[in-house]
Amino acid sequence: MEIEALAARLRAQLGDAAVITDRAQRRTYECDGLTHHRVVPALVVLADTTAAVAATVKECAALGVPFVARGSGTGLSGGALPHADGVLIVMSRMRRILELDIEGQRAVVEPGVINMQLTNAAMPMGYYFAPDPSSQQVCSIGGNVAENSGGAHCLKYGFTTNHVTGLELVTPEGDIVELGGKAPDTPGYDLVGALVGSEGTLGVVTGVTVRLTRAPEDVRTLLAAFDSTDSAGTAVSAIIGAGVIPAAIEMMDALAIEAAEAAVHCGYPPGAGAVLIVEIDGPRSDVQHVFDQVTGLCQAAGAFEIRIARDDEERALIWRGRKSAFAAVGRISPDYIVQDGVVPRTSLPRVLRSIAELSERSGVRVANVFHAGDGNLHPLVLFDERREGEAERAEEVSGAILDLCIQHGGSITGEHGVGSDKAQYMPRMFTDEDLDTMQLLRCAFDPDSLSNPGKVFPTPRLCGERPRKQQGVPADGVAEVF
Amino acid sequence: MEIEALAARLRAQLGDAAVITDRAQRRTYECDGLTHHRVVPALVVLADTTAAVAATVKECAALGVPFVARGSGTGLSGGALPHADGVLIVMSRMRRILELDIEGQRAVVEPGVINMQLTNAAMPMGYYFAPDPSSQQVCSIGGNVAENSGGAHCLKYGFTTNHVTGLELVTPEGDIVELGGKAPDTPGYDLVGALVGSEGTLGVVTGVTVRLTRAPEDVRTLLAAFDSTDSAGTAVSAIIGAGVIPAAIEMMDALAIEAAEAAVHCGYPPGAGAVLIVEIDGPRSDVQHVFDQVTGLCQAAGAFEIRIARDDEERALIWRGRKSAFAAVGRISPDYIVQDGVVPRTSLPRVLRSIAELSERSGVRVANVFHAGDGNLHPLVLFDERREGEAERAEEVSGAILDLCIQHGGSITGEHGVGSDKAQYMPRMFTDEDLDTMQLLRCAFDPDSLSNPGKVFPTPRLCGERPRKQQGVPADGVAEVF
Repeated sequence: MEIEALAARLRAQLGDAAVITDRAQRRTYECDGLTHHRVVPALVVLADTTAAVAATVKECAALGVPFVARGSGTGLSGGALPHADGVLIVMSRMRRILELDIEGQRAVVEPGVINMQLTNAAMPMGYYFAPDPSSQQVCSIGGNVAENSGGAHCLKYGFTTNHVTGLELVTPEGDIVELGGKAPDTPGYDLVGALVGSEGTLGVVTGVTVRLTRAPEDVRTLLAAFDSTDSAGTAVSAIIGAGVIPAAIEMMDALAIEAAEAAVHCGYPPGAGAVLIVEIDGPRSDVQHVFDQVTGLCQAAGAFEIRIARDDEERALIWRGRKSAFAAVGRISPDYIVQDGVVPRTSLPRVLRSIAELSERSGVRVANVFHAGDGNLHPLVLFDERREGEAERAEEVSGAILDLCIQHGGSITGEHGVGSDKAQYMPRMFTDEDLDTMQLLRCAFDPDSLSNPGKVFPTPRLCGERPRKQQGVPADGVAEVF
Repeated sequence: MEIEALAARLRAQLGDAAVITDRAQRRTYECDGLTHHRVVPALVVLADTTAAVAATVKECAALGVPFVARGSGTGLSGGALPHADGVLIVMSRMRRILELDIEGQRAVVEPGVINMQLTNAAMPMGYYFAPDPSSQQVCSIGGNVAENSGGAHCLKYGFTTNHVTGLELVTPEGDIVELGGKAPDTPGYDLVGALVGSEGTLGVVTGVTVRLTRAPEDVRTLLAAFDSTDSAGTAVSAIIGAGVIPAAIEMMDALAIEAAEAAVHCGYPPGAGAVLIVEIDGPRSDVQHVFDQVTGLCQAAGAFEIRIARDDEERALIWRGRKSAFAAVGRISPDYIVQDGVVPRTSLPRVLRSIAELSERSGVRVANVFHAGDGNLHPLVLFDERREGEAERAEEVSGAILDLCIQHGGSITGEHGVGSDKAQYMPRMFTDEDLDTMQLLRCAFDPDSLSNPGKVFPTPRLCGERPRKQQGVPADGVAEVF
């Protein structure tokens, strides 16, 4: 058996403890945060070093065995879903912060370092790592790089791609290369930019150089309650239209508030049809001025209650409801789909009304929680798997919401990635030619499609020497990969 | 003759007026801003539309003829240097602003649109295009995209790549594809990021979607005079170290001041060994506070005179010296090389001292003008071509300065690009394997190296099906390209 031979070769190089063949142990890794997609990997490797990753990938390349890298497994699009005939490379042991260069405002980390771990390490010097996915207590920076993760504060501070300046990469052939470095920009192609968000399809990242951001002098947070998402949306437009760039501006609708209340008793104003959380940070002199402006704009848009956090504890209380929202939905529904779509901010009110209509027509409840400032929706589509047909109807509503996003000039994913979950939706957003052009890059790095196959692209492109002209003509050793 | 046949075919498709064969007319395009590299193109096409570009590239691809796109021809690294056996595609007729989407903070433009033209169009609505190369009055946005251009205000606002969200591209096979769009991020690979700064080697950009930035409420500018670049450097470190992000922070040394004074009589404080120009922008409440802080830090670092612009006219006067600095050097030297290197900001004082030593040892004068906040040096290496050996010595000093940048962990180009000028320096910065990995992308898009060949990479990679393993084995139809 090929896999047994591979296991033996890897044991010889990496030691017995690094290679897992036992089925029960392998099952531990059968899914990531997209829990309804499950595949047990043929083999699991626990990687300690870049050399171990390179050795594993080299052996896979030689035998034509697919491989998938996995960080903390918190991704929501199935980006780390294993391959049944492949190797799952677990990166979570590579958890060292290799360098904190405060003067140069950079850190060099291994990919298994937890997002919050880096911020905790840099905070005593007055710095932090800006991308802040909701899972930041447990998600890995390698995973953030793979999925180009965002978070509540990405409106002002940008996505992971804006904070990565260098990568160490094990190519799908098993070579170790350095891309970029500490400089904000290096000559030649910006492969760092292309790698961030490539969801593991161009190789395995084994080292990451990131920007450290100076902690703001002051932070102020408010919670504003409105009758409806319409009037909350008006407030968002007024704030952004006034040229204010809040650190965060988050919206929750009535159903999301109900869920959060049931789970964490956050005490949001009763009767609210929508709440906004707005956070302003920056130099102290500026924050107060802007904060007053935002408060006024919320009132003008019809906020019936505005609470201002007086200290860190009150700020934490305001955020508790928002941060727990996804998990909290479990309190009001046995099952749910977390969708991740984007619409231009200016289309928000129309799209929200269309989602409400969709929900009413189909009888499927949808709770809305989102990064309002950049139009990144997170509709939570509720269902009960035990009732016949509900799961299917929820999937239909979920897909229809993505179609709405596309119709309004938006996108099928804002920050969770395409993964295995949304590959099927890519043709709704891109023409065959656009997808083909993207896959030129895949073919260049990974012509045999061994690195995280089946993710991102609905149909793998055949990689010949002049692929576009030869499409349809099977190239040696490629046609059977998927 | 192949070129004659090509000219006839292009005339038939694009009309006689679009195709230039006359040698004297072709000579007009023999160089860009790197005026000592000159090559007369075999044919010139004046493109009016995306379709015209696609038709030209398709014909070139069919015949294996190289092609080079040219915007305004202001580039300083020879990125638009023609190919002697190739077609030069002039993009400057594609100069329409197709859409100003103020609400969505985006503009869609043709690549020949002049940088300043877009800002002028958006300014009445309170927006502008943030990247501001010194040549912004004449350089094209297509050229900014090709070179990932920077400018004095890129410290705060980022390079061109941070302001481009979508591209229309004619691939080296002549297909038209859309990459990205108006959204800040789209699913799949970030090919927009990889295309920006690819210097024309991955195809010809025919449409650009860019961010529009809100004009700041307030701008304040000061000029601080110091005895030496050392104390000016101390001020820079103090300002950045205090967490201030100025809109711009520019330094000029004594020789650069002398040149500017001779050319534009900017009236900088006499006897200054260095001047700093610091600009703060943002909300009015914040600007005054930060400005006072910066003034104090300059004084603490030993500034012997600080001038604060009281109005737009005084601000323009302060900037006039800086903006004219490159051209002004012509007043004190018949010839000069504009170098473009980057060092970590913290290494600035050491690198400046080393440049001074280099200059003294070699007898070659070097004037320093630079974006101090991000360590982007622009040493002007002075010489007189008529004196034997001076040009060579200047080239040596210029190269030695790049070596200094690399030794200090910096880069051989900050914003001018690699082009034809610096391809030879790439191996000093990257290993063969790193350069090979970059060229995977080139091979994927342009396996026959027809799109702006000879730029960026010192040695073209052979593009076979599995190139790395086959290197050295000539692949059909590829070996003779250069």
